[in-house]
Amino acid sequence: MKPAKKPHVVRFTVSVPPDLATQLDRMTREKGYANRSLAVADLIRAGLVEHRQNYGDREIAGSITLVYDHHKQHVQTTLTDIQHDHHHLILATLHVHLDHHNCLEVLAVRGKAQTVKAIADELIAARGVKHGKLTITSTGKDLPP
Amino acid sequence: MKPAKKPHVVRFTVSVPPDLATQLDRMTREKGYANRSLAVADLIRAGLVEHRQNYGDREIAGSITLVYDHHKQHVQTTLTDIQHDHHHLILATLHVHLDHHNCLEVLAVRGKAQTVKAIADELIAARGVKHGKLTITSTGKDLPP
Amino acid sequence: MKPAKKPHVVRFTVSVPPDLATQLDRMTREKGYANRSLAVADLIRAGLVEHRQNYGDREIAGSITLVYDHHKQHVQTTLTDIQHDHHHLILATLHVHLDHHNCLEVLAVRGKAQTVKAIADELIAARGVKHGKLTITSTGKDLPP
Amino acid sequence: MKPAKKPHVVRFTVSVPPDLATQLDRMTREKGYANRSLAVADLIRAGLVEHRQNYGDREIAGSITLVYDHHKQHVQTTLTDIQHDHHHLILATLHVHLDHHNCLEVLAVRGKAQTVKAIADELIAARGVKHGKLTITSTGKDLPP
Repeated sequence: MKPAKKPHVVRFTVSVPPDLATQLDRMTREKGYANRSLAVADLIRAGLVEHRQNYGDREIAGSITLVYDHHKQHVQTTLTDIQHDHHHLILATLHVHLDHHNCLEVLAVRGKAQTVKAIADELIAARGVKHGKLTITSTGKDLPP
Repeated sequence: MKPAKKPHVVRFTVSVPPDLATQLDRMTREKGYANRSLAVADLIRAGLVEHRQNYGDREIAGSITLVYDHHKQHVQTTLTDIQHDHHHLILATLHVHLDHHNCLEVLAVRGKAQTVKAIADELIAARGVKHGKLTITSTGKDLPP
Repeated sequence: MKPAKKPHVVRFTVSVPPDLATQLDRMTREKGYANRSLAVADLIRAGLVEHRQNYGDREIAGSITLVYDHHKQHVQTTLTDIQHDHHHLILATLHVHLDHHNCLEVLAVRGKAQTVKAIADELIAARGVKHGKLTITSTGKDLPP
Repeated sequence: MKPAKKPHVVRFTVSVPPDLATQLDRMTREKGYANRSLAVADLIRAGLVEHRQNYGDREIAGSITLVYDHHKQHVQTTLTDIQHDHHHLILATLHVHLDHHNCLEVLAVRGKAQTVKAIADELIAARGVKHGKLTITSTGKDLPP
């Protein structure tokens, strides 16, 4: 007797702001996906690929770019708390007031790649942050001119 | 009588292969999200930002990260000349002195995607720049929370 | 025939008490100026910047330097709210995490002297700000080299 | 026989750009000085008062604000060289492109007051810097909330 077959798909429910759902649907159409689930599956896979990069413990320099609405409750306090917990890694933060709501924040960072990645994850996952990205570059020492 | 309030969130169901769901859940925990929906919402927003990069005349915000040896002849003059030629697009530049030789420079930028890309290319191609990267994000206006 | 060229420098004679001349020469050396004229030119420019601060509707550039404990309740929210209310005047904010508690924040500003002063007052008076200072300089346009 | 009397005044010649001389003359009139020499003498005295402040060796945080024309030969190279020579004291530099010519640069600094003062002097005295100011504040540690 064969073992019970593993199901082909599992279903789960996602709750997002209505505007985000609308924009997801438009992107699904524009990119030519047959349905929303296929689009979301691809987004998850892209996220996993990025997440699993082996960052290692070499010393890197880099930047963390964040966009958030500073009116969103606690977002600023959360971001500053995280940054101060790692103030030895965060060299400086440049904050630009894009408009009445939105902030662009760029952090100059230096430290072990894996640690910097963990801080970036924490900042980007903070509620209220709309979008964030870690950009890794070199400290210049190990890079010939 | 008050008008019907816009719902705070909408719910929809996603069907994905079981392994993908499992791995999404692990990533959700590892990145520190409070729940799966928040993780998926961030993946959707990241997907939207990337998708929209293809539209050259769309307004984007972003950062340009550069590492260079300031002793390299003319590099600084070249970088500043390029930046001043586009001073309406470059909101501010954060400069960190990594060591006696190496500089980490992070520019906060805003403008049409195409123009920002062209400036980034010009800066990164400048003689003496060891490494550079353009990170595109949103001005926040077109990205629902 | 070419038009008469504008002279590069003009010369004029200054009469001052002998001790003042001696002390000017010492300061010129101590500050590292190549000669006395360069030192006096800088003193004149500094005098002009200060003199013009009295004109409330003159456009100035400057910086606002703040030190605060980010754990102090609401201080960060208050500071960001004020800054966003005037996001056209505040070009960018540089935030350095001095230690677990203390923040050094430096704002680059440009606008009418009077308005900039009012914003600086509001920021410095905010509860939780330990110390703050407005530094007025020129936008460079009205200051000859 | 009485010794030769010390002269009441000494004369020396100053060479400055023509526009600066014109603006000095206007300020001399506006401030109500009887002549240019009296105005310059007061500017020298104001400079001396500031120069002689006892900065001491306590640890301070602060900012150095500079305005310069980046087209002026070597100014940028000179400023960066000085900054890198003291990269442990200069936490980060915020650079804003005011217009095609003029730059506003704000440095966040931390270190012994006297050392920071010496670096500020060197930067401000650099040829091409139109105006500069050192703003001293506290690291926050020694300042009760």
